[in-house]
Order: sequence, then C-alpha cells, then structure tokens
Amino acid sequence: MIFDSGARKRLHDLGRLVVSDNAPMPDAVVERHLPEAVAIIGQTDLPAERIERAPNLRVVINVEGNFLPNVDYAAAHARGIHVLVASPAFATPVAEAALGMAIDLARGIGAADRSMRAGSERYGLESNAGAFLLSGSPVGIVGFGDLGRALRRLLVPFGCPVRVHDPWLPQLAIRREGAEPSDLDSLLRASRVVFVFAAATAENERFLGARELALIPDGGALLLMSRAAVVDFDALVREVEARRLRAAVDVFPEEPLAADHPVRSLEGMLLSPHRAGGMPEAFLEIGRLAIADLELVLRGLPPVVCKRAEAETVGRMRSRPVERS
Amino acid sequence: MIFDSGARKRLHDLGRLVVSDNAPMPDAVVERHLPEAVAIIGQTDLPAERIERAPNLRVVINVEGNFLPNVDYAAAHARGIHVLVASPAFATPVAEAALGMAIDLARGIGAADRSMRAGSERYGLESNAGAFLLSGSPVGIVGFGDLGRALRRLLVPFGCPVRVHDPWLPQLAIRREGAEPSDLDSLLRASRVVFVFAAATAENERFLGARELALIPDGGALLLMSRAAVVDFDALVREVEARRLRAAVDVFPEEPLAADHPVRSLEGMLLSPHRAGGMPEAFLEIGRLAIADLELVLRGLPPVVCKRAEAETVGRMRSRPVERS
Amino acid sequence: MIFDSGARKRLHDLGRLVVSDNAPMPDAVVERHLPEAVAIIGQTDLPAERIERAPNLRVVINVEGNFLPNVDYAAAHARGIHVLVASPAFATPVAEAALGMAIDLARGIGAADRSMRAGSERYGLESNAGAFLLSGSPVGIVGFGDLGRALRRLLVPFGCPVRVHDPWLPQLAIRREGAEPSDLDSLLRASRVVFVFAAATAENERFLGARELALIPDGGALLLMSRAAVVDFDALVREVEARRLRAAVDVFPEEPLAADHPVRSLEGMLLSPHRAGGMPEAFLEIGRLAIADLELVLRGLPPVVCKRAEAETVGRMRSRPVERS
Amino acid sequence: MIFDSGARKRLHDLGRLVVSDNAPMPDAVVERHLPEAVAIIGQTDLPAERIERAPNLRVVINVEGNFLPNVDYAAAHARGIHVLVASPAFATPVAEAALGMAIDLARGIGAADRSMRAGSERYGLESNAGAFLLSGSPVGIVGFGDLGRALRRLLVPFGCPVRVHDPWLPQLAIRREGAEPSDLDSLLRASRVVFVFAAATAENERFLGARELALIPDGGALLLMSRAAVVDFDALVREVEARRLRAAVDVFPEEPLAADHPVRSLEGMLLSPHRAGGMPEAFLEIGRLAIADLELVLRGLPPVVCKRAEAETVGRMRSRPVERS
Repeated sequence: MIFDSGARKRLHDLGRLVVSDNAPMPDAVVERHLPEAVAIIGQTDLPAERIERAPNLRVVINVEGNFLPNVDYAAAHARGIHVLVASPAFATPVAEAALGMAIDLARGIGAADRSMRAGSERYGLESNAGAFLLSGSPVGIVGFGDLGRALRRLLVPFGCPVRVHDPWLPQLAIRREGAEPSDLDSLLRASRVVFVFAAATAENERFLGARELALIPDGGALLLMSRAAVVDFDALVREVEARRLRAAVDVFPEEPLAADHPVRSLEGMLLSPHRAGGMPEAFLEIGRLAIADLELVLRGLPPVVCKRAEAETVGRMRSRPVERS
Repeated sequence: MIFDSGARKRLHDLGRLVVSDNAPMPDAVVERHLPEAVAIIGQTDLPAERIERAPNLRVVINVEGNFLPNVDYAAAHARGIHVLVASPAFATPVAEAALGMAIDLARGIGAADRSMRAGSERYGLESNAGAFLLSGSPVGIVGFGDLGRALRRLLVPFGCPVRVHDPWLPQLAIRREGAEPSDLDSLLRASRVVFVFAAATAENERFLGARELALIPDGGALLLMSRAAVVDFDALVREVEARRLRAAVDVFPEEPLAADHPVRSLEGMLLSPHRAGGMPEAFLEIGRLAIADLELVLRGLPPVVCKRAEAETVGRMRSRPVERS
Repeated sequence: MIFDSGARKRLHDLGRLVVSDNAPMPDAVVERHLPEAVAIIGQTDLPAERIERAPNLRVVINVEGNFLPNVDYAAAHARGIHVLVASPAFATPVAEAALGMAIDLARGIGAADRSMRAGSERYGLESNAGAFLLSGSPVGIVGFGDLGRALRRLLVPFGCPVRVHDPWLPQLAIRREGAEPSDLDSLLRASRVVFVFAAATAENERFLGARELALIPDGGALLLMSRAAVVDFDALVREVEARRLRAAVDVFPEEPLAADHPVRSLEGMLLSPHRAGGMPEAFLEIGRLAIADLELVLRGLPPVVCKRAEAETVGRMRSRPVERS
Repeated sequence: MIFDSGARKRLHDLGRLVVSDNAPMPDAVVERHLPEAVAIIGQTDLPAERIERAPNLRVVINVEGNFLPNVDYAAAHARGIHVLVASPAFATPVAEAALGMAIDLARGIGAADRSMRAGSERYGLESNAGAFLLSGSPVGIVGFGDLGRALRRLLVPFGCPVRVHDPWLPQLAIRREGAEPSDLDSLLRASRVVFVFAAATAENERFLGARELALIPDGGALLLMSRAAVVDFDALVREVEARRLRAAVDVFPEEPLAADHPVRSLEGMLLSPHRAGGMPEAFLEIGRLAIADLELVLRGLPPVVCKRAEAETVGRMRSRPVERS
C-alpha cells in the first residue's frame, strides 16, 4: 500500500532487504534475518535482545504515523541505529483538510448545503448570518510539529495573525515561521479559529478542558485534528450545543463513535471519521520518504526526511496505531 | 449596510454629499441635487439627460457588484466622469469560499460529515476512496478578474500547476500572476479542478456546454462561482449524476431553486445558495472601497481601488443585481 | 530596440500600422497617415488638431517611461482614445537594482571590494564594522507605483517591516500590499533603509530636504531611484560626507555629472549613472507590453498592461525623456 | 560577543553553568567542572577521557560555524550527548550577501560605481552592456544546507528556475523547497548564476575544476561563498580574466590574500574578505540559538534550532575555525 511501482523498483535496487509488507513479519523470519539485517521497515517488535542480535542494523523505519512502544529506543540509540517514522507524509493531507474544515466552519458551507438538501435555504446575505471571513481572522495553532507548520504555510495568503503554543519549541523557532509564540490561555483568548495538532503525551491528557474552551471568544471555531485525548470532549460538545463555539472533529474518544452519540445530529459540528491523514496519497508518500532515507543510510549518510525518535520524548508519546484504522 | 461607523464618519467629513442609502433615491431628490452633485453613490439611474444636468459630477460609484445598464456610460466617459463599481470587495470572500469548496470536493469533507450523521461512516483509509489532494493537483481558472486572481493567490502554497483561460487578457498578464495562459479546451483537458469565475457577457452564454464538460478528466471537480448563464447547467448535472465529475455550485439558473429540483439530493454536488460573495464583511468592504476612491476624486486624483466601467466592455455585461438578493 | 523578432512578427500580423521607430516620424508622414491611423506607437506630437484629424485613432502608446507634454491628453480622453505608457517594463529592473544597492549599503559589499583592490582589507568580523542586516530592518518606501510595489515584492522574504508614503493612494491600497501607510516624517524617523521612487510632479520638488533627511536615524541608508528633483541633493551629499547616512544614487541633478563633482570620491555613496531601468531587457519588455495592449485594443477590448494617462495627474508630471539618455 | 544582555540574563537564570567566553577555558577549570557539568558551550576539547569524566553532560554547544575535530563525537553519541553547532545563525547573513553580490554581478553595480569614481561612466542604456536581469535567470545552487536554503527563499520573488546539486539530500527534499534536483554537470550547463555553498569535506576537494567551470555558459556568474577548497581557484581566475565568467569570492585559498595577487585588480570579480557570515548580528544570533537549545535540553527536551553533529558526516568535514578570523 505504501510503495508505488517506482518506489518498489528503487527498493529492490537497494538489494539485500527483506521487507515486512501488510502483515507483521512472522517471528521466525525476523529472527532468521536479524544477523545480516541493515534496515528494517515496518512495525517489527525490536526489544533490546533483538537489537543485540542485529549487529549490522543501521536504521529502523516505522511506516506508522507514530512511534510505538514496541522498540527499545535506548538500545537503538546507544548503537547509533536511527529509528524513524515517516509521519511527515501526513502533514500536507491533514493541513489541507484542516484548512478546508476551517473555511467550512467560518463560512457555513456544509450547513448551507444541508439547508438546500432540506429545502430550507435562504439566499445571499440572509444565508450568511454568523458567517465570518477566515482571511484576516486571528488564528491559534496548538502543537507546531509537521502538521501545524504545514497548516501555517497554507494560511500565509490569508493574512491571519497566527499565534502558536508549543511547549517543546523555543520562541525563536516559532517566530521564524511567521507566528507569534504564546502561552495557551492567551492564545485561546485571542483566537477566532483554534487548530489543535498537539500529540498526546503522558503529561497533556485533556489539557483543553472546560476552563480552557471557555476562553475562546463567542462564535469561535475549534478544529481537533490530532488526538481526542488532549481535549475534554464532553466539554467541547457542550460548547457547540450551546451554540457558543463551532467545531470540527477528526478524532473521537472512541472509534467507531457510538451509533447513538448525540454529536451525530449536532448543528455547528463538522464530523470527520478519522480520515484527514489516512488517504492513499499519504501512504504512498510514506513509502517515498522511507526509501529516500533508506537510500541515504545505505550510502553512509544520515536520514533527512523522516522524523527521528528522540531519546528525550519518544517515551512520552501516547499513540495508538490508528491512521490505517 | 455598507458603511460601518468609521466609514460613515469619513463620508460625512467629505461634506456636501447626498447619498442614496438602502432604497433608490426618489427622482425628485435626484433632480434637485444634480446641479451641484460632485459624486453619486448608489444605483441611481443616470441617462444622458441627467448627466448633462450635473455639470460638477466627477464620479459615480455603484455599490453593486456589477455594472448595470441604468447609466449612459458613453455620456459619462465623454465628460471624464468616473463610473465605478466596488466589486473587488467580493474577491476575498468568493475566493476563500471557492477554495473551501474545492477542498471539500477533493477530500469528501461534507460527504463524510453526512455519512456520520447517517451513521454509515467508515474510518480512516476506507473512508477516503476517491479522495485526492488538492495540493499539487492541476487547476484551471476560467475568468481571471479580481475573483480569479484572489483565488490564485490563495492557491500559491498548494503548489498546484495553474492554467488560466481569459480571452480579455494578454498572455503576459496571466504569466505574471504565476499561471499558464491556455485556450479553454486545453485547460479543461489538463485540469483536475476547474474554477469558473467568468462574468456573463453578451457573447459567452453556455460556453461551458456538454462538449466542454466532457473534456474534464474523470473524477475531476468543477466549481461554478460566477454566473449560471455561462454553463449548460443540465449537462453539468448529468456529469455529476453519472458520478464522472463532482461540482460545487453557488449560482443557479433560477433562484430560488425549484423545491423539487433533482440536484437537491444529488451526491457529489455541493450546493450553495448564492452566498459566496454576499456576506456582511463584503458589504462593509464595499463601503470602504467606495469612500477611499471618493476621497481621492474629491482631492483631484484618479480612483484606484474600485473597478472602472470600461467603454469597450461595460455594454457587454449581462448581470443582474443579485448579490444582495 | 524595443521589439524582438517575436514582437516584430506579432506587430506585422496586426497589419495596417506605420510605426515610428528610432527617430521621430517626419511630420509629413504623420499627417499623411493620420486619417486612417488606429494606433500610434512612439513619441509623436499629438496636439488637439492632429487628434481631430485622426477619427479612427483608438490608442496612443508612448514607449518612453513617462508621459510627456507633447500630447493633448484632454482631447484624447474626450474621444475615448487610450494614451498609454509602457513604464511597468522598468519595474523589475529598477526594483532588482534597488535591492542590490540596498544590500550593498547595508553590508558594505562595494566598499569591501574597493578595500581589497587597495590592499587595505580586513577579514571577517573586523571588516564588518557598521554592517547591518537588511533582513528584518525597518524599510520605508516613498512612492508606491509600479517600481515601489515591485521592490516590496522582492522584500517579502527579508521580513522587513515596510512603511509606505504615497499621497495618491488610500491607506487600504497600501495595506493590501503588506505595508503600513505612513506620513512622510514618521516613515523617515522609523526607517533604517529609505527607497525613493516618487515621480517628480509640479508640487513635490525637493520635498526631501535637509529637514526631512535629518529625520532618518543615524547609520541609515537612502536610495534615490526615481528623479533627482525630489531631493535636495546637496543636503543628501552633506549627510553622507558627515558619515551620518549612506546613499545610493541613480539619478543626478545634472547628467552627465560634472567631472569634478565631489561625490565622485565620496565614501558611503554608491554611484549609478542613471542605469537602473534602462537596460536591454527593459526595452524589449516595453515592446511586449505595447503589443499586448495594442492587440487588445484592436480586438475591441480595453488595455490592461500598460499604464494609462490619467486626466487628473498627467498634467502634473515633470519628466524628461531620460531612460534612453 | 555572542550574548546580548537578554541572552546573558537567560543564561544566568539557567544557573549552575560555567561558560568559556572569549578565550579557551584553562584545562584546570575544565577538569574541575567536568564531574557536575550538564552543558558545555564553547570550543573546549572533549576527548573520550573527558567525556567519561562528565557523567552528567547532556549537551555540548560549539559556537563556531563548524564542527571541529576536537570532540570525540562517537563517545558523545554513545552517551546520548548532543553535540551542536549554531551555524544556522550564518544562513541569513550569507544568503543576503550572496544575493546582493549576484545582483551586483548581473547588473554591474560595483563596476558602474567604479566607473563614476574614475570619471569614465556612460549613462543609461550604454552603461548596461552585458547587464542581465537576475529575475527569471536560471540559477544553480551547489550545496543545499542552511545557507543554500536561505538563499533559495530570498530568490522566490525573482521567479528564477532553480536547480540544486547536493549529494547528501534525496530528490524529494530538494523538490519540496521549490527547486529541481540536478547532477553537477547539468546544473552548471543550465545556470546563468551559480551559487557555491558546499562545505569542504574529505572527498570534495576542488570538485569545481577547470572542466566543470567551462560548463557554465558564457557570461555566467559564479559566487563562491563557502570554502575555497572546493574550487580550483586558479581556473576560476582564468575564466574571469578571459572575460568568459564573472565571479564573487568571499573565501580565498590563503587568507589574507597575498598583497600582489592578480585578482586584486581583476575586472569582473567581486572581492569579499571572508565577511559574508561573520557580522555582529550573526554572533548574537549564535548566542540566541545556543541558549534556546540549552534551555530545551535542561528541560529534558531535544534541541531543535542548532545543527547536530551527525555520526555519519561529522568526521568528513574539513573546516577551520575561520568565521571570526
């Protein structure tokens, strides 16, 4: 699924590789190939013992969007083995979807379409009650990794003042991307549209709670694009039910969402079944990123396009393998 | 509706002006003020006789989005009277809505929302059948006035190759905006997403007919943002019914659309009740543009932000006063 | 000089045209062709009597950079004849040169080159006394026509806050280009680098006098790119002699500059013999712009790429035909 | 030199740090502090023995522009100690200077200034023989690290087609920055302006030799911004002497350059005494980058703004500590 024909050819040209494709590779196969393996692509479990039995291993490329706890990262790092994830492949798909959803919330596009399907539409100015221009509106971005940066670039021609909250980044790294660093509360108070791209970590569960959501100005919009765990979902639903906020949600506390969940008929909420990132083009891009870095490593060079597992943070991530659901 | 408090103050500071506000100004009032009128804002009828009785008149600003046939443009031009329309105020609202609708069509955002409301959603990759990235997709823009250019600017970070068809523009004016000039057929054949911003003129009725629509590749999307008259609407509906094309439509051959019109339940068509331009912020911007140029003219300078009636083309327009419907 | 082979071919294809090439067209030839002339390209004198004898004339295209007083503009306007000048052709050459000169002044590039030629260079940090980054420095642009806008676009990636002073433009037209409108004094006080693109008019002679230049902060730089008449040149020289300001000058009060003029040996001044605009590629672009608009007019459409003579301002210009010197 | 007052305050707030400032820290001081040192800023020698005696060490920040061979990188990596260099601080200064120099070479700015100083200038078009527009000219960038990317961003509004050669980068990483990946020979043949930012490594000495320089089209320009060792300098001089190429040179095989070196009087060559990067603002930026990453590391997070020593490449670099010369 992640390798198109061109990628497949380049992969074969690299030679000497056994790749775990759709299904996890059987343990026996893994064990047999460990001694001579130079690179491992896939979600193969790699505890310290296996890493020890792989003296030639130089790179592990997880084709998931997240680092999973199935690799002993410390053991890999001590050996100088790169552990990579091709998550930047999701940046463009998610950012593009988030922008489309933000325009939808600001302008009422989906709601107007539903009104025409129901035969209750109004025309022109009358249909635009509550609509606002995204162009020029103050925007807040919570979490400024690949996804948040990709969105920031799409926003450039909209001329929005952009605030960013990301506690893992220094202020100058945020300013360099044309955004204003901000603490969370100030960002929420100042933004008409808030994009949430924050990864779920051991420390940040529900950091967007009822108190924080209440800081967003009346008529504002929140887009939850990363992990449901970072938001108090019920509090968010209440804000939308009260018609105080609008929201777009691509990730839910439980997936699939309960058949009778009240948000299924909630006006002012745009529902998206965990699909902003997981589209065919993203998976092909994963393949391209993986091969590009694999080629570099095999040439004795450091990888540059995938994301590396960082010793300091990889253990804090709380992610599940969801993109392919 | 078009003047906020700041604009209203600036207007009053200019002094000596009688402005026709919401309703057309009564004929008697018009006649009384003509002899000393320097500027007329609104949709006042101005046949040659009236222009003749207005020796001090220097500017007429129509706050509609289009030039109407109620002004003797030749008489105004011969006198050096500027006849202006504040239509650039609609560029940002329409372009932003068009981009949002294009992402919706490419990514299936509205359809996925409806599936969750119907309880029939699929998650992740499975929900993305038929979805494509707008980023990088070949785009065609038909009609490259204020609206088309505003959209082109929003598209810059998407990295789409952009073709433009506009028979009123030289190739170098199109290239200068980072787009490739194209004849209509080549544009349609090469584009995955086609935006239609062409004004309706005496010559271009239904120039996008069944033959032309058939040139767009399978799975393409067409967005009709300007005037229904330029498209064979029934042919467009057939293409969407056949699931060959997707479409977003902001203008309909008859408005309001018949209650039993089949497009009201058509999958693959995004329906918008003539609302992309006519939002409150656009009308306030009309006021700001009108005053900015009025101030220039009263200072003995040429207007620069509104659009001028051009002797060569103003008579060809086939527009109705619809934005405020 | 202004038509390359492609342009020449397109011109001939338009047919029925007699073009005055390098030399002014002899009066007899002009008179003979007036009755059937549809377009005139060049600097032909056009008093009202000639315009009257040219009943088919629809467009006059002056291939100079400025509107000269040899045309009766009022007579042309009353007839609806477009009088155009292809001056936008100079925008890119002048803007690019101005940017290069600004970096030179900020970073001391030319001065360092001269020091190496004199054998007196210092290396690294020691050679950078007084150098500053253009990136991020506050910039002022005086005069925001084609030239100033072209420069503003080149400055975008430098992240400079940009103030603009142009009394012929409304504030919103300046803001739209990503700049802050400003009165002249505030701009001068706030800018480290001041670009002067203002055209010379009947009213603005020496509007940048000793008082105004003194407002620019110590160590600032001024680039005089348009007309020497707008600056008190001697006052500017004194500021550079005093090492308070740096300057780049492309236009001089008298050209050629007197052989013994003291600026010829002045440190801190970058000297340019009226050459920023008049390069071969600019003249070829003039030809392309002229033909593009000519083709439109002959097709019954308004011109869009050349600049039109405006009734309100054309009489105020104080320009001499200098670009080709 | 590298810490302004704000940076100095933040540094002190971090506490418990002994910083080696201008001079290398005496060995005794180093040894005394090693056991409790968490971070080392400066050029302190760090052989494996010292690293062993520093059990709490988490980050080493070299405030030079290059990685020097005075650190046992393998030992540091095995311990998970980040070894950083603040070289991104030089990207903007060097890119801006390179752009200014490229415009100078294309437009003949410095040469025209010298002609006015010599009293031999010509005006307007005559002075522009050989001048060409950088805007739209094909550009080649050799070496696409921080410097090359910073230049690429400055070039965006110039609309140049840009080719990049960098054997350490995959093609998609180059395409993502809006440039076309290229082998070296094709780049040289296709470019009118070639920027050389390649670092000197064990393998690339003089890879731009007489054969390669001969591939650049007549009238082209080469800018040598990184290390003299990558070019056959004598061959470059011959190309300029022959008036076939123009060049700007910021780095010389021997510095200071011999007093009687013939390039000191060579027309067509822009001489810069190793000063493009080493300006005061760059050193202050080094301080800001160092502190930003230091703060992250002390908070248990990975560094993000400095450049990390990569196990694969750090040993190949052939750099001398020159920026501060």
